[in-house]
Amino acid sequence: MIREFFYPKSIAVIGATANPKKFGNAVTINILKNEDLISEVYLITKNAKEIEGRGCYQSILDVPKQVDIAIILVPSKAVEAIIEECIEKKVRGIIIVTAGFGEIDDKGKIIENRIAIKCKNAGIRVIGPNCVGIQNNDINLNASFIQAAPKGNISMISQSGSFACASFYAMEQENLGCSKFANIGNNIDVSFVDILEYFYGDDQSKIISIYMETINDGVEFYNVIKKINPDKPIIILKGGKTEYGIKAASSHTGAIATNNKLLEASIKQAGAILCDNITDFILALKTHSLLPLPKGEKIGVLTNSGGSSVLFSDKAEEYGLKLAEFSNELLQKLKPHLISLVKLINPLDMIGVAGEKQYYEITKAMLEDPQIDIVVPCLVVPPFLEMSSSEHYNGMVRAWNDTHRKKPLIPLIFMGNKFKEIKELASQEEAPIYYTPHEAAYAIKLLVERKKILKRTV
Amino acid sequence: MIREFFYPKSIAVIGATANPKKFGNAVTINILKNEDLISEVYLITKNAKEIEGRGCYQSILDVPKQVDIAIILVPSKAVEAIIEECIEKKVRGIIIVTAGFGEIDDKGKIIENRIAIKCKNAGIRVIGPNCVGIQNNDINLNASFIQAAPKGNISMISQSGSFACASFYAMEQENLGCSKFANIGNNIDVSFVDILEYFYGDDQSKIISIYMETINDGVEFYNVIKKINPDKPIIILKGGKTEYGIKAASSHTGAIATNNKLLEASIKQAGAILCDNITDFILALKTHSLLPLPKGEKIGVLTNSGGSSVLFSDKAEEYGLKLAEFSNELLQKLKPHLISLVKLINPLDMIGVAGEKQYYEITKAMLEDPQIDIVVPCLVVPPFLEMSSSEHYNGMVRAWNDTHRKKPLIPLIFMGNKFKEIKELASQEEAPIYYTPHEAAYAIKLLVERKKILKRTV
Repeated sequence: MIREFFYPKSIAVIGATANPKKFGNAVTINILKNEDLISEVYLITKNAKEIEGRGCYQSILDVPKQVDIAIILVPSKAVEAIIEECIEKKVRGIIIVTAGFGEIDDKGKIIENRIAIKCKNAGIRVIGPNCVGIQNNDINLNASFIQAAPKGNISMISQSGSFACASFYAMEQENLGCSKFANIGNNIDVSFVDILEYFYGDDQSKIISIYMETINDGVEFYNVIKKINPDKPIIILKGGKTEYGIKAASSHTGAIATNNKLLEASIKQAGAILCDNITDFILALKTHSLLPLPKGEKIGVLTNSGGSSVLFSDKAEEYGLKLAEFSNELLQKLKPHLISLVKLINPLDMIGVAGEKQYYEITKAMLEDPQIDIVVPCLVVPPFLEMSSSEHYNGMVRAWNDTHRKKPLIPLIFMGNKFKEIKELASQEEAPIYYTPHEAAYAIKLLVERKKILKRTV
Repeated sequence: MIREFFYPKSIAVIGATANPKKFGNAVTINILKNEDLISEVYLITKNAKEIEGRGCYQSILDVPKQVDIAIILVPSKAVEAIIEECIEKKVRGIIIVTAGFGEIDDKGKIIENRIAIKCKNAGIRVIGPNCVGIQNNDINLNASFIQAAPKGNISMISQSGSFACASFYAMEQENLGCSKFANIGNNIDVSFVDILEYFYGDDQSKIISIYMETINDGVEFYNVIKKINPDKPIIILKGGKTEYGIKAASSHTGAIATNNKLLEASIKQAGAILCDNITDFILALKTHSLLPLPKGEKIGVLTNSGGSSVLFSDKAEEYGLKLAEFSNELLQKLKPHLISLVKLINPLDMIGVAGEKQYYEITKAMLEDPQIDIVVPCLVVPPFLEMSSSEHYNGMVRAWNDTHRKKPLIPLIFMGNKFKEIKELASQEEAPIYYTPHEAAYAIKLLVERKKILKRTV
């Protein structure tokens, strides 16, 4: 049934409004914005005859046809009466966007429990309350009051709407995007596990990401991520790990203290990726979205900048990664492209004179070398010798393309965040950029660990 | 004497060239670019009569006047002869940009040692070889082949030119900048300690930053940073901490293995800030450049986004920071500005409806509260309710200005890197932005720790 939330034939927007100062308006507009939406949309409100040129119904009971999904935007005190109408209308699913329930006080908890039981008895699934809604980019459905995520292969469940909002901003910067998104809020019925099961079977959801503050059914959660993980990487960030964090989460989603050590251990045991912070979370999305897994773990490094490769080498060792020894065959291939000052060791410091040609040839030689599994071209964009800011990146990505992207390429553009030309090229080529040595090393750690986990599982 | 490197009355550029494909050209152009430079500049080359409309000398010995500083750009095999001429000319200081000495092989080490001894006997100080040069933004002197740093209150010594390059790109993005910069390369004479002593006495150098790969005189280094630290924060990143890193550093700056545990312990003991990676390094620069120290350590948090304040609270506890308890007086001040759904606890989750007015009033009330030492306004830029993307930031910064910036303000704009309007406002106001909860918490940790260190020292 969860699929119908994402592919509804018909949607009723209950509490639709033309007032741009209300959250209900954002949801209404976000749904109506997509002119190609194949779902039928019915706007329900007592306060307007039409919104955006569409006629409104006074009640969902006035809608002449079957309604799959009802989205409830009315004030909290009016929600229970609306639920009764939805039950009478025999909708299949309800999304309660309205806040002011279990996250506020015990009275709110009682009301939301009552709603959950009523809907359960009627065979209706419920997402929320206190949520921003859901999105399905594959049909341009934005049934939420936040911006539509950029399009891509990641599906996300978040217990925080604003976390999703922030992640979407970050994804936009990194050329990443979402297929499906759900914010389950106080999750009185539809749970992480339900959505995860659905994402598991959904072909467009290649990577699964989760922001969670509390989990009610730890064992089921463990079982489902363990099942999914061999097929799709699961990337998790947990909020509310400390006393301060739990206190903050309790006023946010009515979260209760979770046994975090147990949860962390079971996530690891299941083979999923538990991130320490949102930066690592976005890095993990980027890495698994854009890169293949390596066959082995031997890394080849080239650079025009000693500093970046020194710092990368430090992090590589700290993360337990392995730098390759260059074979004689490889050295013979590298030599013709390098000036005599260059020492033929890994990391290969080609010095500031190296331009597009060197980055292309050396990256290619390493990508083709059987002793190297992962290639890290480090670069500080040179402000000299009339070099263009994107030529080196262009060289390494061409080499990657010419070797059919079989091995992971980790372009480390040291603090190169300001270079728009590089970002545009990355976007066009659907290639990643890492901006710091520790980010690059972290990405490799993720790839190598996942490869090991999959080997263990098979 | 070190001062004369940064404020030379006259400079000879030896190996000046009009060929844009040579590093020497970058140095030549970078020096000539500044039309207001008060230093006399003499271009020395055998290959051209004039460069950029300026007459050239065949040898430094042909220059009719005294020369303070000689910058050597000629190929390595020609360097020793040039040094002889500089000695004869009685220059005060030499910067050897040319590479190909101790970082290459033992022969190179012997030659650079010979140069060091000759210059020492002649009473001439030497920076380099194998360095990008130096900069003094206060007189627009860019005697290096990298781009001039943006202007600011940070002075930097880096053993890697490209590290400086990358840092300058990052500083540009964060509205930070440099006063003085030196890359000491293989540091055969002028050392970290010499430059640090100079920065200590230099009024424009408010914050001191160091990227180092090796240190020869550990005890002296400890003594100088211990002396400086009570007056100026010292921010250090060390490359070559691991076996891989040391191997990479040895081909980079001819670095030898340092006892890193001892070095780390002495840096901590001296009270300086040792960063784990370049992201933390830039964060530390930003924090100490733009924020005052707090009186105490109690933090007040406001937010429109539960997710960001939950994650911030987690990191705060992990870093040993303290969230304030709101007093009754403060609650009475906050209440009129908040909707009834808001729970009056710290972090104060004002929910998505909070706009500029709430951010101004609540931030101001917290900044004025005697029980709060540090204020963290968290924000996810709301994509709804017709809010402008910079209004909340504007509100918090106005509150900071109206309370005379006495307490640190830590604006956490959750993943808000894409919002140009906010960045522009930050630049205009010289105010910081932190983009993630862990960055914000790390910044507070730095401020609180420095405050404690200074208390201990006084």
